Amino acid sequence: MNAYLISIGDELLIGQTINTNASFIADKLADINVNVTKIAAIGDSESSVLAEFEHGLEQNDIVIVTGGLGPTHDDITRTCVVKFFETELVENEEVLENIKDVFAKKNRELTDVNKAQALVPAIAKPIKNYQGTAPGMWIEKDKKIFIVLPGVPYEMKCMMNEFVLSKISERIPDRDKIIKRYNIQTTGIPESYLYEKLGDLDELLEGAKLAFLPSLVGVKLRITVEVNDEETAKNKILEIEQKIRTKVGRFIFGRDDDTLEGIVGKLLKERDLKISTAESCTGGFIAHTLTNVSGSSSYFERGVVCYSNASKVEILRVDEDILVELGSVSREVAMQMAEGVKSTSGSDIGIAVTGIMGPTGATTDKPVGLVYIGYCDDKVCTGMKFNFGNDRLLNKQRTTWAALNMVRKQLLGIALDE
Amino acid sequence: MNAYLISIGDELLIGQTINTNASFIADKLADINVNVTKIAAIGDSESSVLAEFEHGLEQNDIVIVTGGLGPTHDDITRTCVVKFFETELVENEEVLENIKDVFAKKNRELTDVNKAQALVPAIAKPIKNYQGTAPGMWIEKDKKIFIVLPGVPYEMKCMMNEFVLSKISERIPDRDKIIKRYNIQTTGIPESYLYEKLGDLDELLEGAKLAFLPSLVGVKLRITVEVNDEETAKNKILEIEQKIRTKVGRFIFGRDDDTLEGIVGKLLKERDLKISTAESCTGGFIAHTLTNVSGSSSYFERGVVCYSNASKVEILRVDEDILVELGSVSREVAMQMAEGVKSTSGSDIGIAVTGIMGPTGATTDKPVGLVYIGYCDDKVCTGMKFNFGNDRLLNKQRTTWAALNMVRKQLLGIALDE
Repeated sequence: MNAYLISIGDELLIGQTINTNASFIADKLADINVNVTKIAAIGDSESSVLAEFEHGLEQNDIVIVTGGLGPTHDDITRTCVVKFFETELVENEEVLENIKDVFAKKNRELTDVNKAQALVPAIAKPIKNYQGTAPGMWIEKDKKIFIVLPGVPYEMKCMMNEFVLSKISERIPDRDKIIKRYNIQTTGIPESYLYEKLGDLDELLEGAKLAFLPSLVGVKLRITVEVNDEETAKNKILEIEQKIRTKVGRFIFGRDDDTLEGIVGKLLKERDLKISTAESCTGGFIAHTLTNVSGSSSYFERGVVCYSNASKVEILRVDEDILVELGSVSREVAMQMAEGVKSTSGSDIGIAVTGIMGPTGATTDKPVGLVYIGYCDDKVCTGMKFNFGNDRLLNKQRTTWAALNMVRKQLLGIALDE
Repeated sequence: MNAYLISIGDELLIGQTINTNASFIADKLADINVNVTKIAAIGDSESSVLAEFEHGLEQNDIVIVTGGLGPTHDDITRTCVVKFFETELVENEEVLENIKDVFAKKNRELTDVNKAQALVPAIAKPIKNYQGTAPGMWIEKDKKIFIVLPGVPYEMKCMMNEFVLSKISERIPDRDKIIKRYNIQTTGIPESYLYEKLGDLDELLEGAKLAFLPSLVGVKLRITVEVNDEETAKNKILEIEQKIRTKVGRFIFGRDDDTLEGIVGKLLKERDLKISTAESCTGGFIAHTLTNVSGSSSYFERGVVCYSNASKVEILRVDEDILVELGSVSREVAMQMAEGVKSTSGSDIGIAVTGIMGPTGATTDKPVGLVYIGYCDDKVCTGMKFNFGNDRLLNKQRTTWAALNMVRKQLLGIALDE
C-alpha cells in the first residue's frame, strides 16, 4: 500500500516549525510495510489544501493529513474536508462528551469555540483525542483511506498509536512474502567502529538487509527480512542477532523500543537495588531520564543537582581540599559525589557526574565537553573520563547516556573501558 | 517571488531523517521575503524526481533541490538535472581543484568516485562546497532559477549563507511592499481562551495577519505585516503588540526565540537572586530546564529530587506528620518542600513540585495529573494546584512550564490565579 502525507501550516513554509510529524508518521508506516511515496508541506490556503487532497488521492491508497484542526480562524482543514468530500458538519455526541471531559478535568469553562470542535464532517468517523479537544477523522471512500490528524505532535502521536496504525494494518491485503523488521539497540560505540566490527555484511546477512540508525543514545541496527512465513522470519532474525551479539554483544542494551533508562530500571528492580544520583553538569537530566520510567519510585531514591561547590560539600560531603586542589571537574570529585549520594541516601548505588557543558567554563587544561562520571556501590567505587562535543544540550544528553550505560555495565559485570 | 523546495532521499520517506534542511531554507527565504509555496520530500527515484522538477517550475520563480548529490549509486539528482534540462556533464576545473584540496587536507587518497564529482551539468554554474566535495548548482532558464544543494546539512547551510541567499536577493525585483514577522510568546493560557480574549481580530489587526502556534510551553502569536517600508512595519507591529498586551499582557513572557527558562534566568540575574528547586514528580526536569541556559550557575544554586518520603523529611525538613496526614501530594507539602530547599540552600527563592504523573499512582481523591507547586521567597510562601493530563512525560513538562511561569509571575508581581 502506498501513502501520501500532507502537512498543513504556514509555520512550516516559513521554517518556524520543523516537520517532525511527517517523519514520525513515515517511521510508523514503514513498520507496518506501508510505502510513503511523498511528503508535502503546504500553507493554510484553501486552494493549496484542496489541490493537495486531489493530488494525494490520485495515485495512493492512503492519504494522511496533519494540522489545521485547531479552534481558531487559521485552521481550515475541516472546512476543506467538507468541501472536498461534498459533505456537511454534524455535531458528534461522543466528541462533545470528550471535549466536556477535558474541560471538566481542568476545571475550565467550556466556550462556544470549543463546543464547535464537536462538529465532524458527516462522511468521517471521528478519532478520539485523548490529549486534547480536536477529534481526528477517518474517511473511507472508493477503496481509499483518508485520515486527518491534529498538528499538535502529542495529540497526533496518540491517535496514530491508539487507533490509526492498527486500523490501517487491518486493511493491508495478504501478500506472498512477509516483511519483518527487528531492531538491536547499541550504545557506547560510534557507527563507523560498529560497522568495522561487524565485518563482511553479506556473509552476516545472507540476503537480509541491515540499516545503521545513529542517534544520541547510540546506534540502532535495523534488520529487515523478507521471507515466506512468520516462522522463517523469526528464525532468520534470531540467527542474525546471534551473529551480531557474538561480535558486538557488550554494546547491545536492548531491542526495538527499549530505552536505556528502562533497561537500567529493570535490572535495578530485578535485583531489588536502590539508586541515587548526584549531578553537576547535567543539571538533573539523569534523574529526569531515570524517572521517565513509570514505577521508577521503587528503585530511584533521590537525586541532587549540586551546581555550587558549597552544595557539593554540604549535601554530598565532598572534601573541600580536594575541590580546591583538583577542581570540581575531576575524577576524584566525581567519585566522592557518587559515594556521598550513596551513603547520605542509604542507596545501594550512587552515580555522579561533573563536567564542562559549554559554551563557557573551559580552562586551558579542561576543555568544553570534558566530563567525569563516578559510580559507587557496596563493592566498587570508580570514575571514568569522557570527552564530548561543544553543544551544551547534546553534552547533557550524551553524559546521561554514558552514566546510565556505566550503571548497566556494572550491573551486568561488563568491564568498563574508556 | 515564489519558491518551491524539493528534498530528495528515501531516508525522509521512512522517517529516518527529519527534514530540517527544508525548514532551514524556508526560514532563510522568509527573511528575504521569498514566499515558499510548498515543500515536497520524495524518494531516490528518477521518475519522482523528474516529475517534481516539472511541478516545481510550473508556478514558481525559484526551485531549490537538496539531496542526492553524493558519490554513491543511490545519488541520482545530478543525472536527473542532466535529463531534465537536456544538457551534458562537463568536468569543471575549479570543482576538481576543490575536491583535491579537501582530500589533501584530510590526508586521504583521491579515488575515481570522488574525481567524478567534478563533472557538472553544462547548463549549471557550480556553487563552491567549502565543507565537502559535491558542488551545488545554480541554473537560470526562462527567467526561472533552479538551485541544487547537497543534503548534508552543514554543506547546504554554508552554500545558502555564502552564495545562494545574496544571489537570490540580487534577482528580487524592487517591490512596493515589504513583509515583516514578529512573534509574541504566551504561556499559561489555552489557545481557545487566548483567541476569545483577543476579541475581534479584524479590528485588532487592521489588515495584518495573526497565527496561533500552540506548543507545550504555550501559544506563540505570529504577527505578519505587509506594508510599504520598514518604518511603517515597525510601527504597525508595535501598535498591534500594544493592543495584544492590553488584553493578555500577563500571559506574555517573551518574543521571537525567547525561552521561558531564559526569561526567568534573566529576571533572576538582573535582581541578583539565587533559586533552588525541590522536585518530586518532575524528577529533575525543572533543574534540567533551568540549567539548559548557559551561565545559569550564577543563579541556580542547587536542586533536589526527592522521590521518597524519607528524602523529603531528611533533605527538605518536611513535617513527617503532615506527610502522613495530607499525603505527599498536597499543597502543604509542596510549600514545605519549597521552604525547605530555600532555607537549607540559603537561596532567595525555593520552588517545589509534587504530583501524580501516571500512569500509576492515582487514588480516589488524587487523580493522575494532579500537581501542587510551592513557591517561597523572603516575603511569600504559597502553593498552587494544577490538573494536567494522563501522559507521564507531558505532565513532567507541563508541570515544569507552570512552575517556571509561577516564578516569572512572582518576580514581576503578576497575581497568581488557578
